[in-house]
Amino acid sequence: MLMKNKLISDLKKELPCVLDTLEERYAYSQDASNIKNIKNIADAVVFVETAEDVQNVVRIANKYKTPIICRGAGTNVVGSCVCEHGGIILNFSKMNKIKEISCENMTAIVEPGVILGDFQKEVEKFGLFYPPDPSNLAVSTIGGSIAQSSGGAKSFKYGTTKDYVIDLKVVTANGEILRTGANTIKNATGYNLGSLFVGSEGTLGIVVEATLKLIPKPECKKVVAAYFDTVSDAVQAVNAVIEQRIYPATIDFMDKNAIQTVEKFYPANLLINKDALLLIEIDGFECSLAYQENIILNVLKSCNAAEIQSSHNDEEYNKIWTARRSSMGACAQLKPNVTTDDVIVPRENLAKLVLGIREICEKYGLDVCMVGHVGDGSVHPQIPIDYNNEEEYSRYKLAKGEIYDLTAKLGGILSGEHGIGLEKRGHIHKVINSVALNYMRQIKKTFDPNNILNPYKIF
Amino acid sequence: MLMKNKLISDLKKELPCVLDTLEERYAYSQDASNIKNIKNIADAVVFVETAEDVQNVVRIANKYKTPIICRGAGTNVVGSCVCEHGGIILNFSKMNKIKEISCENMTAIVEPGVILGDFQKEVEKFGLFYPPDPSNLAVSTIGGSIAQSSGGAKSFKYGTTKDYVIDLKVVTANGEILRTGANTIKNATGYNLGSLFVGSEGTLGIVVEATLKLIPKPECKKVVAAYFDTVSDAVQAVNAVIEQRIYPATIDFMDKNAIQTVEKFYPANLLINKDALLLIEIDGFECSLAYQENIILNVLKSCNAAEIQSSHNDEEYNKIWTARRSSMGACAQLKPNVTTDDVIVPRENLAKLVLGIREICEKYGLDVCMVGHVGDGSVHPQIPIDYNNEEEYSRYKLAKGEIYDLTAKLGGILSGEHGIGLEKRGHIHKVINSVALNYMRQIKKTFDPNNILNPYKIF
Repeated sequence: MLMKNKLISDLKKELPCVLDTLEERYAYSQDASNIKNIKNIADAVVFVETAEDVQNVVRIANKYKTPIICRGAGTNVVGSCVCEHGGIILNFSKMNKIKEISCENMTAIVEPGVILGDFQKEVEKFGLFYPPDPSNLAVSTIGGSIAQSSGGAKSFKYGTTKDYVIDLKVVTANGEILRTGANTIKNATGYNLGSLFVGSEGTLGIVVEATLKLIPKPECKKVVAAYFDTVSDAVQAVNAVIEQRIYPATIDFMDKNAIQTVEKFYPANLLINKDALLLIEIDGFECSLAYQENIILNVLKSCNAAEIQSSHNDEEYNKIWTARRSSMGACAQLKPNVTTDDVIVPRENLAKLVLGIREICEKYGLDVCMVGHVGDGSVHPQIPIDYNNEEEYSRYKLAKGEIYDLTAKLGGILSGEHGIGLEKRGHIHKVINSVALNYMRQIKKTFDPNNILNPYKIF
Repeated sequence: MLMKNKLISDLKKELPCVLDTLEERYAYSQDASNIKNIKNIADAVVFVETAEDVQNVVRIANKYKTPIICRGAGTNVVGSCVCEHGGIILNFSKMNKIKEISCENMTAIVEPGVILGDFQKEVEKFGLFYPPDPSNLAVSTIGGSIAQSSGGAKSFKYGTTKDYVIDLKVVTANGEILRTGANTIKNATGYNLGSLFVGSEGTLGIVVEATLKLIPKPECKKVVAAYFDTVSDAVQAVNAVIEQRIYPATIDFMDKNAIQTVEKFYPANLLINKDALLLIEIDGFECSLAYQENIILNVLKSCNAAEIQSSHNDEEYNKIWTARRSSMGACAQLKPNVTTDDVIVPRENLAKLVLGIREICEKYGLDVCMVGHVGDGSVHPQIPIDYNNEEEYSRYKLAKGEIYDLTAKLGGILSGEHGIGLEKRGHIHKVINSVALNYMRQIKKTFDPNNILNPYKIF
């Protein structure tokens, strides 16, 4: 206790905002994963405002050999921001400046606490576009999206966060400043340290500034919604669309349960008796949109689409996407808790994965609503659950294990865009071979020899 | 000598094809960089055909603590394939199978010796597209493009090799098999080891198989060529085009010297009295091409373009690009040797870089033809030179140093798509800070503790 008091006193001497009441420490020790049974909570919550603040915290953390867990909006769903071994929560919400948007370089320089959705709106004012868009972009931060390598609906055409990070300013575990790249869109100068940090979940260093690549904003967009009687038909339709050399920005889907649950709580005139809803967003010049839509409509019809609707204006466009984004919120109405997941397989195995997850959940008496990014082969099974029901929770854990086994069997991996955190670290060996895991552990040791940066996350 | 005999005898026992005559060893100890003053040549050249062959070589190399230098077509221009400390050249030209092209997954699995241009043609038969296209793609291999993180003309819109590698099968320095990813287009499962290998120039492991992401092939393409009286006008025109939310596949350029040199040796009706030629390639659906072209033509006119030509068919399209690609060959006619380079800056500083390089070369009495990718801020200064002229060679080396100093001053880096090799390792500290270099060295030690994999390259 004396040690902890000294830690807090040191922090208060050096940093502008340190919280240490039990309530505050408790509130910031959880994230959106709502992990059950956390044994420890944070010793202190520090709001940082500058890179120097972060360096000061790192210096103090090293002195007391205490963990540092970084946090933006805390929307993480795999427990990456959870404080399970005590330590210092580093809150970046006040370090939220967009420092530069350069039209000429097509780049932006941002602090980690910038809200992703705000940033997107800001760059769009300049006719530019930052594609990564996790569903929670209205609240989630750029720092978090870098830590977890976020993707979102537009990954199919536009890639994920890693494809847009060209330089990071990082405070290392020993308090030095590391630059990973440059303000250039190509780089073949030494090892690609930037890509190593993206998706490393705060375990290798603390990102205090990011230079991001931007692209010209497409002139127009439109979404085509098509219902199918089977998941396999829906996946087959995706292949047929791509065979026509169409490159949709998004190919998302919702399964029957997701459609019905959304319709129950947020009615949007979705057809509740169909097994799968495909959402295909096309973008580009206005003149090409009708051309693409025409091809897509023909393909969908020939692939047994039961019903097809296209958006004709912003209102219709937003209505369809709001329905898709409401899925998690709707699921949350079914039980006291809801969890989401993020498994991904080669697209040829996607129908098998969706049907397999349905079977597994049925076997364990669990509801599951599935949404996902068909184009990417990615599924987000959302499972409503009551954490206080111990017996249900055990069934849930068994189901999860089987879902990961199935994913591995189908040549997939455990996360396409959420990360591993502490929720899936016990399963990572199912998809990453021991040689790779061994090198990952050595890299962790290289960058964080005292194991103070978000310890024991990922593996 | 006894040791070397034993090494060769061991290799011959285990491997199907080992060359060890002086001529053979000499021939394979150089690459297209044509480095001057190589003190040592290879002890043996081994043609590998399988991952097991590579593992056998690694086992033997460890036994004799001898270097392994991997080689595809040897088109490297920074000396990455040069054998400067003896050892074993691993030649991948026989390990050249395209193992799979999957339309459903939009991925391909290839061996490292596959010729890049052959691979592109093969995937295009399926309506798919693999964008990385270094100018030497008719001979260079995929393994080399992974080792150097190759880009090419289409990087502006489509990125570089690192954006297309989703999984690598790697033989590690201790002979184990490492998998870096999966056959999925997104991955947030543990550290991104794949991106660490791309561009690592064979210093961290030996890639024996790659899974590559493919995209739908754009329906049509067209190139617009515009001449300008100043380099600054040309760069300004690029900004103006992008402001119109046009996203060209390529924005390349040639400076006056490059234009005149090409015209001298490979006449293509280029206008030889203009300071800069901009080549803007647009692609997409046929219906959108006229729309984009119209906007571009208007913008170029308002930006003082002196003369504008568009391609109207494949013949005209190929003629323009052949002229651009002939630049290096044309330069090679001026002197016994020619060198190219690969510096890159934020686009706002590109005109300063081009003019600065011109000044530096003038100061040292060197000719220079500049081509490059304006969109990316990337310049390839091609300098004709006679390596046997010691005095000229010294001036050349001094000019190179100043070009790198200038690049660093303009916020740029030493390579966007060629790598560092041994040509630029003495300058890397100018653009990468010591903290980053230190971590790169530690990563090298982690993956290659005995320093047998392409030792002393990069740094």
